Amino acid sequence: MTIDYQTRLQTLLKSLNENNIDVGMITSPANVFYFTGFNSDPHERFMALIFDNLNKEFTLFVPALDKEIADTDSFVKNIIPISDEENPFAKLKRALGPNVKRIGLEMNVVSMFRHNQLQSYFPDASYDDIQPGINRQRLKKSRNEIVYLQQAVDIIEKVLAEGIKKVHAGMTEAELAAELEYLMKKFGAVGPSFSTMVLAGEKAALPHGTPGERAFKKGDFLLIDFGVITKEGYCSDITRTFIIGEASDKQKEIYNIVLQSNQAGITAVKAGVPLKTFDIEARNIINQNGYGEYFNNRVGHGLGIEVHEEPSIHENNDQLAEKGLLFTIEPGIYIPNYGGVRIEDEVYINEDGEAEVLTSFPRELQVL
Amino acid sequence: MTIDYQTRLQTLLKSLNENNIDVGMITSPANVFYFTGFNSDPHERFMALIFDNLNKEFTLFVPALDKEIADTDSFVKNIIPISDEENPFAKLKRALGPNVKRIGLEMNVVSMFRHNQLQSYFPDASYDDIQPGINRQRLKKSRNEIVYLQQAVDIIEKVLAEGIKKVHAGMTEAELAAELEYLMKKFGAVGPSFSTMVLAGEKAALPHGTPGERAFKKGDFLLIDFGVITKEGYCSDITRTFIIGEASDKQKEIYNIVLQSNQAGITAVKAGVPLKTFDIEARNIINQNGYGEYFNNRVGHGLGIEVHEEPSIHENNDQLAEKGLLFTIEPGIYIPNYGGVRIEDEVYINEDGEAEVLTSFPRELQVL
Repeated sequence: MTIDYQTRLQTLLKSLNENNIDVGMITSPANVFYFTGFNSDPHERFMALIFDNLNKEFTLFVPALDKEIADTDSFVKNIIPISDEENPFAKLKRALGPNVKRIGLEMNVVSMFRHNQLQSYFPDASYDDIQPGINRQRLKKSRNEIVYLQQAVDIIEKVLAEGIKKVHAGMTEAELAAELEYLMKKFGAVGPSFSTMVLAGEKAALPHGTPGERAFKKGDFLLIDFGVITKEGYCSDITRTFIIGEASDKQKEIYNIVLQSNQAGITAVKAGVPLKTFDIEARNIINQNGYGEYFNNRVGHGLGIEVHEEPSIHENNDQLAEKGLLFTIEPGIYIPNYGGVRIEDEVYINEDGEAEVLTSFPRELQVL
Repeated sequence: MTIDYQTRLQTLLKSLNENNIDVGMITSPANVFYFTGFNSDPHERFMALIFDNLNKEFTLFVPALDKEIADTDSFVKNIIPISDEENPFAKLKRALGPNVKRIGLEMNVVSMFRHNQLQSYFPDASYDDIQPGINRQRLKKSRNEIVYLQQAVDIIEKVLAEGIKKVHAGMTEAELAAELEYLMKKFGAVGPSFSTMVLAGEKAALPHGTPGERAFKKGDFLLIDFGVITKEGYCSDITRTFIIGEASDKQKEIYNIVLQSNQAGITAVKAGVPLKTFDIEARNIINQNGYGEYFNNRVGHGLGIEVHEEPSIHENNDQLAEKGLLFTIEPGIYIPNYGGVRIEDEVYINEDGEAEVLTSFPRELQVL
C-alpha cells in the first residue's frame, strides 16, 4: 500500500492551471507532506513546495539541515536547500525569475510577514488563495488512506484496552497519561497525535483539560481523549469515559444520554444531507434530556494527516456530506465542578455513501 | 516563585502606546501564555489577547470550550468565549466598536486570511507589527525565568542519566525514545518540548532525523537530542552523543573536534559582542580540522516558553549579545552515510554579562 503522489500532484496542477496561477507556493508542513511524502516541521525556517507553471516543474525548498532526509523521503526530487544565513525569498526570486505575475498560496497559513516579503521580491504579483482547492483534495479520503487511518485507530484501541488495566485508585491523571503514551510507542506509533487527555472527577468537565496530579478515587469519572500518529503519518482520535469503582444513578443517566446522542449522530451519517444534520441529531438527544446547556461545542471535526482537518461538523454547516469524508462524532455533557462524559468515534462516508465506523472499542459504560 | 504578569502587560502597554496603537491583538499561543499564564493551543479556533487602548482594557477571547480553564489560569480576567458557530471577527467588532484606526498585530503569526477578515470588519484600520516589541520583551529572560528554565534542564538531565542505563545492543531507536519520554513524565515534566531524537549509527548524520527501527550495534554513534516542557511552561533542549560498545579512532577524533568546538562557542559567550561571534568561534574549530563542509547549520537558537525563540546564533547575525539572553550552543559534524556528533548546551548571559551554563551533563565521550 503506497500513496499515489503523482495523482495528487496532477490534481493540484490541474487546479492551479484552472486558476491561471504562475507559481504555487505550499508551505503548510501537512500540505507539503500530503504532496511529497516529506514530513517535517521546519519551525520558523522556510520550507515550501513550489510549482513553477512557467517552467512546468515542482521544486521543494527545504532547510539545509533537512536536505538528506528530504532526498530520501520526497516524491518531488528537485530539492533546493536553504541555509540558515540565506534569505529564502531572495533564493525563491533567483529560482523563479522576474516574470511571476500570479502567485497562489495558502492564505490560512502564509503570515503577513511572508506576504510582505513576497510583495517586496515580486512587486508586480497578485495573490490567489489555493487553500480551498487543497482542502477539497485532502477532504476526500481514498480507500488507501482509510487503510492507514484504520491502522491509527487499531493502535489507539489496543493502547486503551491495555492502558485501562493499569487504572487503580490513587493513580494520577499524569501517571496514566505517561503509561498510555508509552504504550502508543510500544505498539508502533510515532507518538500521540495531540496532547493526551486523562481527566478525572470534576476535571472531566473540561473539554480541553490537562492531566495533572489529580488522583483517581471511587466514584470518579475518567475521561480519556487521545490518539496516535503512525509512521505513515496518519492520525487517530477517540474518547471513552469510564467510572472508577462505582457509578451513581446520575452518572449512569448522563452517560446513557451521551451514548444515545453519539449513536444518533452516527446513525444520521450518510452522503447527500447537510453536515449540520449530524450535529443536530446528536444535540437533540442532549437537549431533549435537559442537558443542552452543558454541550457547548460542535459535535465533530475531520481528521487525516492532521488531527483537525475539514470538515467541521457544527449546527450551522450547510455543506453537503459526500463520499470520502472522515470525521469524529463526539457529543458530550460537561457539568462544571461535577464532571463530564464524552464518547468519540471516527466515521467514514464510504464508496456507497454510507457510514463506516472505524472505531470499535466498546461504548457501554465500563466501571473500572 | 511566580511570574509577574502585571509588569509584562505594562511593558506591552507602554510599547503599544509609544506606537499609537488603538488595538493590540495577540494570537500566538506562546505570546498569549506569556502575557496571561493561559497556556492553550486553540488549533484552528480563534484565541486572542486584545488590548483596547480606547477603553484601556485587556480582554482574552477564547474558544468557548476553553472558557473554564481560562477563567482559572489567566491573569487577565475579562474573558469572552467564542462558540464554534460564531464569527470571531464579528464578535471582535462588536466588542471594540467602530473607531479602531490602528491595529497592532504579530505579522509573523497572523495569516493573510485573518488579515483579510480584519480588513473587511475594520475597513479604515491600518496595521502595525507588534511582534518585534514582544520578541524583544521575551528575548530577555529574568532570573525568575531562569529558575524555571533550570528546572527544565534538571529534569532532562535526570532523564538522560537514567535513560542511558537502559541502552543495550539490539534495542531500537524508537524503543529508547519511548523510554526517555516515559521518564520525562515520571520525573514531573508535561512531556517532550519537541519530538525526541534518538539516532543511531549512520542516522546520527541527520540533524532532524526520526527514531525508527534501527537497532543499536557495537560501534554505533548514538545521538540523543531532546528536552522537556515543564508544568510551568518552560522548555529545555540538550544533545549528547555516545558510542555503543567501542569507539574507533575516527569517531574519537570527530567527537573531540565537536567538543572543542562546543567549548570554543561557550567560552566566547558574553555580553557586548555580536552574536555571530559564538557561531564563528565554534565553526572555526571545525573548519580548521577540515570538517567544515559537514557543519551546515547555525550554532544555536534561543529558547524559553518555546523551544525555538530569538536570538538566532548564526554567522551573519551582527546583533549585539546582551544580558538576559538564553540560547543553545550546538555545533556538530554530520557525515552522510557515516554518522554524526552533536553536543548541545544551554547558555545564559547573566546579570554580570557573563556566560552561565545551565546544562551540566558530562561532555566527555562516554562509551555505553
